[in-house]
Amino acid sequence: MPVILDDIHAPRLDELLKVCEAQGVTTTVTARTSELPSIQGLGTLAHAGPSEISFLSNPKYQSQLAHTRAAAVLLTPEVNDALPASSTTGFIRVVCAQPYLVYALLARWFDAARTPRAVAGVHPSAVVADDAHIDPSASVGAQCVIESGARIAAGCRIGPGCVIGRGVTIDTDTVLYARVTLYDGVSIGARGIIHSGAVIGADGFGFAPDPRAQGAWFKISQLGSVNIGNDVEIGANTTIDRGALDSTTLADGVKLDNQIMVAHNVQIGAHTAVAACVGIAGSTTIGARCTVGGAAMLSGHLQLVDDVHISGGTAVTSSINKPGRYTGVYPYAEHTQWQKNAAVVSQLSQLRKRIRSATRTD
Amino acid sequence: MPVILDDIHAPRLDELLKVCEAQGVTTTVTARTSELPSIQGLGTLAHAGPSEISFLSNPKYQSQLAHTRAAAVLLTPEVNDALPASSTTGFIRVVCAQPYLVYALLARWFDAARTPRAVAGVHPSAVVADDAHIDPSASVGAQCVIESGARIAAGCRIGPGCVIGRGVTIDTDTVLYARVTLYDGVSIGARGIIHSGAVIGADGFGFAPDPRAQGAWFKISQLGSVNIGNDVEIGANTTIDRGALDSTTLADGVKLDNQIMVAHNVQIGAHTAVAACVGIAGSTTIGARCTVGGAAMLSGHLQLVDDVHISGGTAVTSSINKPGRYTGVYPYAEHTQWQKNAAVVSQLSQLRKRIRSATRTD
Amino acid sequence: MPVILDDIHAPRLDELLKVCEAQGVTTTVTARTSELPSIQGLGTLAHAGPSEISFLSNPKYQSQLAHTRAAAVLLTPEVNDALPASSTTGFIRVVCAQPYLVYALLARWFDAARTPRAVAGVHPSAVVADDAHIDPSASVGAQCVIESGARIAAGCRIGPGCVIGRGVTIDTDTVLYARVTLYDGVSIGARGIIHSGAVIGADGFGFAPDPRAQGAWFKISQLGSVNIGNDVEIGANTTIDRGALDSTTLADGVKLDNQIMVAHNVQIGAHTAVAACVGIAGSTTIGARCTVGGAAMLSGHLQLVDDVHISGGTAVTSSINKPGRYTGVYPYAEHTQWQKNAAVVSQLSQLRKRIRSATRTD
Repeated sequence: MPVILDDIHAPRLDELLKVCEAQGVTTTVTARTSELPSIQGLGTLAHAGPSEISFLSNPKYQSQLAHTRAAAVLLTPEVNDALPASSTTGFIRVVCAQPYLVYALLARWFDAARTPRAVAGVHPSAVVADDAHIDPSASVGAQCVIESGARIAAGCRIGPGCVIGRGVTIDTDTVLYARVTLYDGVSIGARGIIHSGAVIGADGFGFAPDPRAQGAWFKISQLGSVNIGNDVEIGANTTIDRGALDSTTLADGVKLDNQIMVAHNVQIGAHTAVAACVGIAGSTTIGARCTVGGAAMLSGHLQLVDDVHISGGTAVTSSINKPGRYTGVYPYAEHTQWQKNAAVVSQLSQLRKRIRSATRTD
Repeated sequence: MPVILDDIHAPRLDELLKVCEAQGVTTTVTARTSELPSIQGLGTLAHAGPSEISFLSNPKYQSQLAHTRAAAVLLTPEVNDALPASSTTGFIRVVCAQPYLVYALLARWFDAARTPRAVAGVHPSAVVADDAHIDPSASVGAQCVIESGARIAAGCRIGPGCVIGRGVTIDTDTVLYARVTLYDGVSIGARGIIHSGAVIGADGFGFAPDPRAQGAWFKISQLGSVNIGNDVEIGANTTIDRGALDSTTLADGVKLDNQIMVAHNVQIGAHTAVAACVGIAGSTTIGARCTVGGAAMLSGHLQLVDDVHISGGTAVTSSINKPGRYTGVYPYAEHTQWQKNAAVVSQLSQLRKRIRSATRTD
Repeated sequence: MPVILDDIHAPRLDELLKVCEAQGVTTTVTARTSELPSIQGLGTLAHAGPSEISFLSNPKYQSQLAHTRAAAVLLTPEVNDALPASSTTGFIRVVCAQPYLVYALLARWFDAARTPRAVAGVHPSAVVADDAHIDPSASVGAQCVIESGARIAAGCRIGPGCVIGRGVTIDTDTVLYARVTLYDGVSIGARGIIHSGAVIGADGFGFAPDPRAQGAWFKISQLGSVNIGNDVEIGANTTIDRGALDSTTLADGVKLDNQIMVAHNVQIGAHTAVAACVGIAGSTTIGARCTVGGAAMLSGHLQLVDDVHISGGTAVTSSINKPGRYTGVYPYAEHTQWQKNAAVVSQLSQLRKRIRSATRTD
């Protein structure tokens, strides 16, 4: 699961693997060409059917090799060497250094094969400002709104119902799924992917106490923008606010999952990946090649160096100057057990006092 | 509060209660028919006016019976027996085994009474592919986009501005409020309710490290889909990602609140209810009849059996094999008090060492 | 950064400061009129260029005064007195009691100067019910849907793709950015700002156990509405659910950041500000002038008095009767260090027992 192509359109295994060759990724097939099957899709070892290819990337699934129905399996030379002679396995082995990367290349190929090409041009129901510039090779979906001065480059695909503000620029081959909102002046790099419901460039949350009325707030207009590099993916319903004065910035290759909040003036370094439901407060800077686990939260005005890895659910409340993994999630337990421990947490400082005075008297 | 119908359209109490009878739910009214008032709406004991019906479901509100202005009150036989003779209360008693369920039945009736029937047919501003199939009894709102091969069954109501992707299927009597997005291939069961801003079927968050460029990620195309059963409700701005290979699945009767994130390959069992702001990471399976409190988070690749109840704010980081209630939220406190205790948390392992060595010497 | 106006349209410093005078906020410039520059924009001390004005509000940035390239700097009399004579600084000093408020006033002026005036009237692509009432001075963007009986007052600006339900009222000069959804019956006050993707008035999450089918839920129709006061700002993708019977209410001057969840029946007092990713569960009441830090969560049915300040990430699980600051976030640490401490947390109650018995024997 899933079968993507019918029997007639499915490529023979060796033809399919040319997809990898074209990317400079080598694979070796342990079977004669005459024995090679057509491949209709890709599946997990547990669920692939006899017309699909599968892969073994995580060693903990190795035992599933014995039972898989897959026609062929991507695996490393080490796994291959440890297996019995090929005649004793029901699948053809495709040996490669990075099975997970080969799987990714093949999945992309199947995805493209099943997806109809977007038709270039602007759907007649879209509302496009006279002075917006849309490359003739780009596609703009139904019910879109493209405002004054926006520039959409070659090969872009703008899904139905998107709203692209004044002066926005979107570089080549970027895809926006349905109902994305880009506020005025936002810039997006090349080859990006932005999922539905994402909102980029809304006002940062900034207010000055207004001494003229008790408790009242005076809005700080947000004059900066949002600049997003190349090869960035942004998940569904994620929000990235515009900067107060300077711009909020995502470097090349950043990957954001769904429902993430990136506040004003945040800077995220190249190739950093952030899982869903993370909140990053204002003016925090995250280095390159970091990962942030789901539902983690970062306070404002922090600096995280490159190669920092934050575990899911962790509240990061201070800057991090050293690469490494950081965690701070409280262990859960069966409720009555938790109650007993949680009660002690509220008394820890007294408890420590008691210990100190007791151990001192020993 | 609130009064729903004007005096002319309001039903007499006994007529109104036929709504319950029709559902097989019995009620007994402690008053003569000639004394029965018209009922214009439903309210809490505290705020119902003299033309409204109220209910007592939670015993902790029982003292409010003395002061309610409601015309009638739904209550259990036990409460009724404990009250003084009916002549001494200002309201008519409607005795029933489940007052909360009766309230729900009546609220649904009033809601239907105030809501104009959707007009069947497709709004002229909607953009519908030639080969989409929309049942003539369904209603498609203004500015919708329905793509190729989508199938919308009888009685469905698609709100304004929805985007329904290629090959989507929606079964009978399902309601989509405004601006819902269903990506290509998603399937939705019968009698569902999906609120505005929900995004179903966006790509799961999957990347392979790309060894050809330091730190770079290679996208894993998400070839699975999302399958949603019957009688499922999905809240505003909730996101449910499509599976990587197999499909993300919600069984019948699942209820999701707002701003929930369901990652790729997640399976949720029948009648499980999840409160707002919960994140469920990839490939986790939740059993039937579970409840998950608000802002809880579940790590990926976990298994939760049936009848598990997670308290709000709890981070579930391991599988749960036994039904029951589980909790893990750190107690908050006045800030300076908290500072003292939090400081100890960072030293707990040293503290334990000290205790062990001290108690050993006793 | 950023320069907002070109040289020709930039006001001279003294003309610009009349913006503050008009609001009753006094400033004093330490230079002769003949020496005053034109001001093209506003920047931080670190990034302002020689045609921009900057400000010093937080004393910790005072050392940046030595190196700023700004043409002029807003600062307090205290800071001014502590500086050397004006001839020795490269910038003109603008002395004022509240530099941050003056900055806010000037930022608003520049923002208005760069933003084209919305054109009054309804865009031809919008779909507006015959009996909706839209003031002629209001502007309704492309692809909007305005349903029956909605009322949009003078000076409102409704962005592209908004959906305004039946009977909604929006008071004067309120701005909705693109793709906001207001469900039937919601009311919004004057001078509000609502950002893209916000959903106001979706159903609260209420279900009765349905004894007629094991584990099944029966929906509680949500008959209340949402009432929002004047001068309220609501962030991108924030959701505010309608009340079950009474209405969910936000008082005047409330400020909500992005991705906040306000459940049914919640009441929020005047001028309370809530940072991003906060969840507030059903029927909780928050007082006036409170602040809630990012990613905090409040359980249902709580009461928080006025002037309560909740730190980011804190789970508030009980009512708060005393003004002050409250915190409850578990300290994070380098992963292996955290593992050692987290293990102890699960054993705290046994540890306490051990301490008690040991210290008793001393």
